[in-house]
Amino acid sequence: MAILGELLIGGTAVRGTNGAVVARDAQTGEPISPDFGGAGEEQIALACALAAEAFDTYRETTPAARAAFLEQIAQNILDIGDELVTRCMTETGLPRPRIEGERMRTVNQLRLFAGVVRDGAYLDARIDPAQPARQPLPRADLRLRQIALGPIVVFGASNFPLAFSVAGGDTASALAAGCPVIVKAHSAHPGTSELVGRAIQAAVRSCGMPEGTFSLLFVSGYDLGQKLVADPRIKAVGFTGSRRGGVALMNVAAARPEPIPVYAEMSSINPVLLFPNALAKRGQEIAKGFVASLTLGAGQFCTNPGLVLGIDGPALDDFIAAAGKAASESAAATMLTPGIHDAYASGVAKMEQHPKVDTVARGQAGGRYQCQAAVFSTSSQDFLRNHDLQEEMFGAASLIVRCPDEAAMREVVEALDGQLTAALHIDEEDHAAARRFLPVLERKVGRILVNGFGTGVEVCHAMVHGGPFPSTADGRSTSVGSLAIARFLRPVCYQDLPQALLPAALQDGNVLDIPRRVDGKPEVK
Amino acid sequence: MAILGELLIGGTAVRGTNGAVVARDAQTGEPISPDFGGAGEEQIALACALAAEAFDTYRETTPAARAAFLEQIAQNILDIGDELVTRCMTETGLPRPRIEGERMRTVNQLRLFAGVVRDGAYLDARIDPAQPARQPLPRADLRLRQIALGPIVVFGASNFPLAFSVAGGDTASALAAGCPVIVKAHSAHPGTSELVGRAIQAAVRSCGMPEGTFSLLFVSGYDLGQKLVADPRIKAVGFTGSRRGGVALMNVAAARPEPIPVYAEMSSINPVLLFPNALAKRGQEIAKGFVASLTLGAGQFCTNPGLVLGIDGPALDDFIAAAGKAASESAAATMLTPGIHDAYASGVAKMEQHPKVDTVARGQAGGRYQCQAAVFSTSSQDFLRNHDLQEEMFGAASLIVRCPDEAAMREVVEALDGQLTAALHIDEEDHAAARRFLPVLERKVGRILVNGFGTGVEVCHAMVHGGPFPSTADGRSTSVGSLAIARFLRPVCYQDLPQALLPAALQDGNVLDIPRRVDGKPEVK
Repeated sequence: MAILGELLIGGTAVRGTNGAVVARDAQTGEPISPDFGGAGEEQIALACALAAEAFDTYRETTPAARAAFLEQIAQNILDIGDELVTRCMTETGLPRPRIEGERMRTVNQLRLFAGVVRDGAYLDARIDPAQPARQPLPRADLRLRQIALGPIVVFGASNFPLAFSVAGGDTASALAAGCPVIVKAHSAHPGTSELVGRAIQAAVRSCGMPEGTFSLLFVSGYDLGQKLVADPRIKAVGFTGSRRGGVALMNVAAARPEPIPVYAEMSSINPVLLFPNALAKRGQEIAKGFVASLTLGAGQFCTNPGLVLGIDGPALDDFIAAAGKAASESAAATMLTPGIHDAYASGVAKMEQHPKVDTVARGQAGGRYQCQAAVFSTSSQDFLRNHDLQEEMFGAASLIVRCPDEAAMREVVEALDGQLTAALHIDEEDHAAARRFLPVLERKVGRILVNGFGTGVEVCHAMVHGGPFPSTADGRSTSVGSLAIARFLRPVCYQDLPQALLPAALQDGNVLDIPRRVDGKPEVK
Repeated sequence: MAILGELLIGGTAVRGTNGAVVARDAQTGEPISPDFGGAGEEQIALACALAAEAFDTYRETTPAARAAFLEQIAQNILDIGDELVTRCMTETGLPRPRIEGERMRTVNQLRLFAGVVRDGAYLDARIDPAQPARQPLPRADLRLRQIALGPIVVFGASNFPLAFSVAGGDTASALAAGCPVIVKAHSAHPGTSELVGRAIQAAVRSCGMPEGTFSLLFVSGYDLGQKLVADPRIKAVGFTGSRRGGVALMNVAAARPEPIPVYAEMSSINPVLLFPNALAKRGQEIAKGFVASLTLGAGQFCTNPGLVLGIDGPALDDFIAAAGKAASESAAATMLTPGIHDAYASGVAKMEQHPKVDTVARGQAGGRYQCQAAVFSTSSQDFLRNHDLQEEMFGAASLIVRCPDEAAMREVVEALDGQLTAALHIDEEDHAAARRFLPVLERKVGRILVNGFGTGVEVCHAMVHGGPFPSTADGRSTSVGSLAIARFLRPVCYQDLPQALLPAALQDGNVLDIPRRVDGKPEVK
């Protein structure tokens, strides 16, 4: 498939007329031709107009048709073949197995949402039948379903060029909900974005969806991205990226005449809690697992273990020594973009110079744009006094906090900002102590895990990839897993509508064969 | 039960030290003693601290215990007896049958949420069991439940002194979710608020809930109410009131270091759409129903029919004449507060002087603080050109818009702001036309009803009392009905937790006997 550097606006492919986005080889920083014309204001407005026009039709497509559409996108992505993998490797510097794995995850994610659409439980269909004889007043016939919010803007993520980009989790869940999607491609992988965008565009066409169901824009500069969020036809935003970027979009969305939700997945340091018995028995093993998780994909995961808490003593000393040894032996790895590399390097340098922080180890040095791992340590007292030590260093850097006792460790957890994940390393003898931490962690994080690390986010029904601010803009939601569809829905009630005017999901006889509740109880089939 | 004018902070009753809120007889405007001491900053901080302290314990009370607590509150409210009814009548000017009905609704609402808590479906419990043999990577054991958000601030509404005030829908749904609640009493009915607050406080005590589960504050002035929303321990806000008040709270909440959701139910004019066949056949009857709905409770309902759309012609002329006649015969009724009366009077006066608006009829004049109904008319062209004609006049005032044809009527609907409800008056011959409006209405409103009026909001499972901005701050939610509990929840995922550390809702064997999904399918018992 040729990469032409074009915007995909509805059914068309056109050259953007407002500046350009340049694709680069992540390893060398060298540009790759062609460049990608940036969308101008008129092109942005056209994508929004087409999305608004498509909305009423697209959202009322049958579950079968929408599911088939999602599956067709998945198939089209696979059909691009190895060109997608090699282009993505060049643009991101990520190795082949990772890209191939991420492609499979992307495809499975689309298929999962096809299943969610067919199942229909997400509609939360409810029927409270009329009670004409009720005293003192009769009850009307009341029925509820969830409907799609409206056109959605998705900002592609730098660190998941497939699974959280053009056809990633935000797009898949929004399309599943019945929302047209406009993707603003991330400048870190524009060629990959165009290839995937064309796969979606082809699926829109072959499945007979309205053309405005999908558009892909390359945007040069921040202003126009914000204009997209400010457009009155846009009804929600999906974003994965920096805290600064996410908060900027939240502010734009809140200042609109009609404020809209922003689902921004931003920053998290994902605390790892080492409990005494596990640490004493398995410290070496946990240290190895920790460094493997830390350095995976050059540490460029939202769920990277950026903070480790343990109770001071010989077992923690041993853990730190083992982690330091493993980190110092870890190879450097190319980062996604020169900008991400430079931000990492300056964050690590700041930490190295911090008067209250010791450098435990640095990984192997590498090329100009490669990530050199870093492990630091500090005391809980200093951690509590210096809120800047909670700042995420996006990349393979982590801070180990020595706590004098369990109470101090709990104090540190209480002082943490919202997080995506927290990991507890425990043995059975640690259960009582772990139980004291669970209520605190539930308030702070979206996912609590035991004897593992947060990297590796399963796409399934029970996943939560979300958490209190600032890990996300809205801790009431998840961006991974089937529950992500809920972000793009709102409830509508139908009172006393004749059968002929009711949506299929709510008609007598359950023509869609979906789970429903009647008077609050599961409907008997 | 004595009314002492005290703040209820956790288990204590203390005199507020910062100004005072004065109870008034709605009919005369005369003060009633005692007055209610306003909460000072320290008292607000204490209520927040107690709520935060109560949170971890309260949210993990068993479903049985929490349901019994809600039912005890209901019983305690009934046990206050006629004193509650008479005090409420004096403070609000509303007639006995309305207050008695609202009391029953409040009690039933608490009982409905007790049922919701026992049922457990709101927890959205999901289990994706481990797949240790999966290739290329094993799958962890993943489980999800919804947990309570945290301490909630509820602003009592002026127009529902019982059903949307101290123990109203926001409080009931937040308590059901497991959130401690701090109510800021509305100054329109402080005595009613204290009586109900003491009923809740007694239930907290007798049911053994942590004392910070509930506090009731009287607050003098806007600043301290905003301080309450800004307190870092507060995690969401429920509000029913004016657009200006709601937007002010949204701004405070968005500007916090940790932004929080505000569920503000604000302004709605609830369009009524008259279709040709229904209008021709039943215009007189619909006009009578319209005026009855318009003048109910002095028009002080969020769902009051403030806008009527019809296609110009003799049938619409007849409707307008009939509505005018009925309105002109309607008796004046005391409004909730002098302030509400004066705002209504000035809104109506502005409309009377509007160059593009005709006054169809005024109702009977009444006393100083009584609402005199008003019906106006204008053309669709003028309506579309004057956005101020969409402004809510809180009270028994409505604007009839003459549309030259169906297309113009649809254009008006497309130009509407978000609304709580829309009502269609149709006969079977109107179905085809109605079908053309439904997609537009679904985008604009939370509840669509046929051959009725939006007043009379059923508390049940399928109700949506919400809608796109500015009818509410967040169209993804409802403030009436069992789905209201979803506003105060967020999902948490548990990965590879030993059974002993899992919450009861997610343990093997389904000890709570609640609906759960395993691998996305309903669990087989």
